[in-house]
Order: sequence, then structure tokens, then C-alpha cells
Amino acid sequence: MAHRFTCTERVQFSDTDMAGIVHFSNFFRYMERVEHAFFRSLGFSIVDPLEPGQERVGWPRVHASCDYMAPLRFEEEFECELIVEEVRSKVLRHLIRFWKKDGTLAAEGRITAACVRKDPTTGQMKAVAIPQRFVDKIEAAPPELLKRPEKIIPG
Amino acid sequence: MAHRFTCTERVQFSDTDMAGIVHFSNFFRYMERVEHAFFRSLGFSIVDPLEPGQERVGWPRVHASCDYMAPLRFEEEFECELIVEEVRSKVLRHLIRFWKKDGTLAAEGRITAACVRKDPTTGQMKAVAIPQRFVDKIEAAPPELLKRPEKIIPG
Amino acid sequence: MAHRFTCTERVQFSDTDMAGIVHFSNFFRYMERVEHAFFRSLGFSIVDPLEPGQERVGWPRVHASCDYMAPLRFEEEFECELIVEEVRSKVLRHLIRFWKKDGTLAAEGRITAACVRKDPTTGQMKAVAIPQRFVDKIEAAPPELLKRPEKIIPG
Amino acid sequence: MAHRFTCTERVQFSDTDMAGIVHFSNFFRYMERVEHAFFRSLGFSIVDPLEPGQERVGWPRVHASCDYMAPLRFEEEFECELIVEEVRSKVLRHLIRFWKKDGTLAAEGRITAACVRKDPTTGQMKAVAIPQRFVDKIEAAPPELLKRPEKIIPG
Repeated sequence: MAHRFTCTERVQFSDTDMAGIVHFSNFFRYMERVEHAFFRSLGFSIVDPLEPGQERVGWPRVHASCDYMAPLRFEEEFECELIVEEVRSKVLRHLIRFWKKDGTLAAEGRITAACVRKDPTTGQMKAVAIPQRFVDKIEAAPPELLKRPEKIIPG
Repeated sequence: MAHRFTCTERVQFSDTDMAGIVHFSNFFRYMERVEHAFFRSLGFSIVDPLEPGQERVGWPRVHASCDYMAPLRFEEEFECELIVEEVRSKVLRHLIRFWKKDGTLAAEGRITAACVRKDPTTGQMKAVAIPQRFVDKIEAAPPELLKRPEKIIPG
Repeated sequence: MAHRFTCTERVQFSDTDMAGIVHFSNFFRYMERVEHAFFRSLGFSIVDPLEPGQERVGWPRVHASCDYMAPLRFEEEFECELIVEEVRSKVLRHLIRFWKKDGTLAAEGRITAACVRKDPTTGQMKAVAIPQRFVDKIEAAPPELLKRPEKIIPG
Repeated sequence: MAHRFTCTERVQFSDTDMAGIVHFSNFFRYMERVEHAFFRSLGFSIVDPLEPGQERVGWPRVHASCDYMAPLRFEEEFECELIVEEVRSKVLRHLIRFWKKDGTLAAEGRITAACVRKDPTTGQMKAVAIPQRFVDKIEAAPPELLKRPEKIIPG
């Protein structure tokens, strides 16, 4: 059962803006990058392959947010830390922290993704229960992981 | 005194993702586009020009969030509505709604921007009181504008 | 018969990079924006709607290039000028110029798009003759329009 | 003396468009990513640090182009291969190939970057001779590397 995932990324030139720092919208791309890497680490893909006997699901976002504490700059390496905040029947909520190499928290974001399936009759997406194959592998983190720590490099 | 601004935009191809809809991160670019157009409409620029006797300020984001209700698709025109949610001494908070042409609310986001100035001694950015020239023109909207309406095209 | 299209755009903050100018990759987004607006001006969409009796086609790029002469900066308005360079049996080639308001040529790019249709048997995209409804409306520009002019605002 | 650099990347969701493939403009971001990693591999940074006794230079693009052969899709891993095509007195030209894991060439691009320095008097950027510290480490590749190969995974 997984509830935490980390990876290291590097700021690209095209991520920066004329203020010389990562544009605030790119933290949402970074969040998604981590979320998808977390899924891959469990043998899943956000773009759910159609397999015999399985119901193919999608994960559109219903909410995203980010608090910005310290800017990231060109070529800076940073640590991404995804923590599963909540596994509801039809919704996954992730907390994603971006750490500078000196242990400063650069930003902290959240993504809420609904589990949806295309209704074969109407063609509309509708929220469905998260399939068991995901529930078997993803669990909410213990509450102490969710408290925002101060200047501590994640181990 | 301004507390509301609207403009019309169109979804570009490069805004979409393989799900066939606007990528969720692009709503944050859309929010910024509206915010900057609002500033221009008042004779300001987010990149504050250095004028004699003025203190040059910047507006980094300290928070951004978005709730997603209905997807936007390629070439779709949509209405952007910025509502000033709060004018604090050092912070501006905006609510931005994205409306489909049929009156459906596609998404609702928020940006919190701090007013900062570079400390001439340390070179660090620090939060400062919003200069009077902005306070003279920007005010918080009346509370009834902040309540999320249902399926009403903004007039 | 159309062979030229112009529109005015404005540089957005998220188009810039830490060098304080529009990131070179964004000129390719600008090119596409103009190309799609050109199609709309003729009653077409790059995402070809499926209509009875019509063969639905797509327009993937096979080549794109750009020469950069002068940088564009935040909030700068610029004129986009698309000139149809060539209409071949299965390929459209466009020249797109970006003009600063003072008449300086900021950049000049080219896009080559192939007309493709999904093979119903294999599911593969293959190049096909451009349908007559496009050929009836789009023509190559006279050669004098293709010569790169110097410091002349397009009329 | 270096004339070739390779690295492996993975297509991110936000790189794709509604056609289900990497948007053509993102190949230019990929090219830059490889170019900057090449510089880092030699101990340089595209954002030249100011060191005592050194002339700080920048590398704006004067040309960029890309030929597209086969699409890249979400989560696909691909090999990037940068080959130094030419080292002129004031200009570097790179050829960048993007290889699918089955050895198919997905795209082949070129970037031409000028070496510039800010004129201390006018504040304008002007092209200057590439400093010796770069010329000592970067050389043009042998011509046989520049011929476009067919379906061969780079070794």
C-alpha cells in the first residue's frame, strides 16, 4: 500500500518567466508530472489501458491549488514529494510538496482528481467508484505526514 | 473604483491535451491573462514601469486555486470574469470565473498576489503596503458578486 | 480566394522567459494561432467537423521553422501576417511574419502541414489530396509577397 | 572535445494536444532541454555565471527548425541525440534527433544560437566571438554523424 512518492526534477529554461523564476502555472504541470510518476511506480497509467474485463477509468481534476513560499530558479534541482491525502470512494486527493535542495519548502500544492467512466449510452463522463485494483495499492497517508513541516529535507 | 472586469477569449489548440479539453494548468494562464488585462484597463501594468517619484512594485503570487466544473474545448469562446475579492494592505485577492457561451460556469479560480518591493540593501523582495495609486482605483466587490451563481451569463 | 491573413496579438507574461523576452518556442504557438484564425476566417476549422458526404481531414505538421530578428517583450502588441506560400496536392505551406508596431520584423516562420485522413482499415493516418472545398478558397500568394520586406508595417 | 550528447526523456501529459500526440511546438522545448543538458555536461550553463576575469555571454536563438516524421505519445520514452553541426566564430549550430525506443526517428530539429554580450555602453546585445573556454570543449561533429540515418537506435 503506497501513500508517498518522491522524485527529483530540474527547472527548465522554458519554465521560467521574465521575473527570473518558475512561472506559477508550471507548478501545476510539475504536480501532474509527480502524480503520473506515482501511478507508474504502482504499475498504473493515468491513461488507463483498456484491458479485458476491466472498466477503463479517467482522472479529471476537479480542484487544484498551490501555495508559493520560495521561488525556484533556472537549473535548480528540486525534490517533489507526493503524499496521498485522501482516498474517497470516487475521488483521490494528493498533497504535493516542492523542496529546494537546502531543505526550504518552495511550494505546496493539492490536486483532487475524480474517477470517471464514459457512460456507454450517453457518452458523458460520470464519476464512478475507484476500481479495486487502485484501492488495493493506494491508501491515505498517516496524518502526521500531512502537517506542513519546516525546512526539513524529506528523507 | 473598479471591482470587476470581463473579456472574451478563445481556446487555442496548444491549450488542449490528449483528453481533448483545455489542460487544467492552462486555466492558471487564463487567470493571469485576465488579471493583467484588468490592470491595463486601469492604466497599470503588472510589470510596474519605473516612474520618477514612484516606488516600483511587483505582484508575485502567494496562492492560486481552481475548481473545475465543465471542460472547455478547442476553438470554444468563453467569457472571463474577474471580481476583486479582497484588497488588504499588502495583498490583492481576485476571483476569476470562466463562462461557456451557454451560461455554464466552466471553472472558478482564485489568485492571491502580494505587493512586493525589492529592498535596496539586501536585494530581497519584501511585502509592502499597496501604493495609493492602486488603492485609489481598485476596490473589493460587493459580497453578492462573490456568491457563485448558477448558469447565468454575466451581463 | 485567400492567400493572406493578418491579426494583432499581445505578448502574455507566461510567454516570456527569464531573458525577459518571448521564449523562442512560443513563436510556434503564435504561428499556429494565426493559421487557425486564417482557417476560421474562411469558414473552416483545423479540427475538421464531420459532415455528411465529406471526408474528414487532419493537418499534422511535417515541418516548422523560424528565423528570429528582434525580441518581443511583455505586453507588446504585434501584428501577425500569414501568407500562403504553396498549395501542393497534399500539402499546405504558410509563411508567417511577426511585426513590431514600429514596423520592425521580429520573426519570420514557416509551417508545412500535410493533409491526412485516417485509413478506415488500418487506422493509420495517410496523406491525401486536399479536398476541393479547401482548394476552392486557399491559393498561393503572388511571389512578391514572399520576398522578405524591410521595416515596413503591413498595410 | 565534445560533439555529441544523448539523454532519455519521457512525454508528459501536458506535452500532448487533442490529437493525442506531442504538440509540435514542444519539440522546440525538448531541443532546448537537451542543449542545456549538453552545456551542463561540459561544466557550463546557458545562463553564464559571472566569474572574475570572464566575459559573460548569452546564447539567443537566431534560427530553429524541425522535421516531424513520427508522433510521440503520452508516457513514451524517447532518446534525444544532440550533434554539434557547426562551430562558427560567433554561432553554434546543433542538430537534435528524437528517437523512439524501437529505433524510429520521430523528429529531427536544428537550433542556431548566436553568442552575444551586452554592450556596456549601449546596453544592446551584440554578437561576439565565442569565448575560448567554450571553443576548447565544443567541436563540430564528423560529417558522417550528420547524415540522417534510418531506423537505427543510437548506440
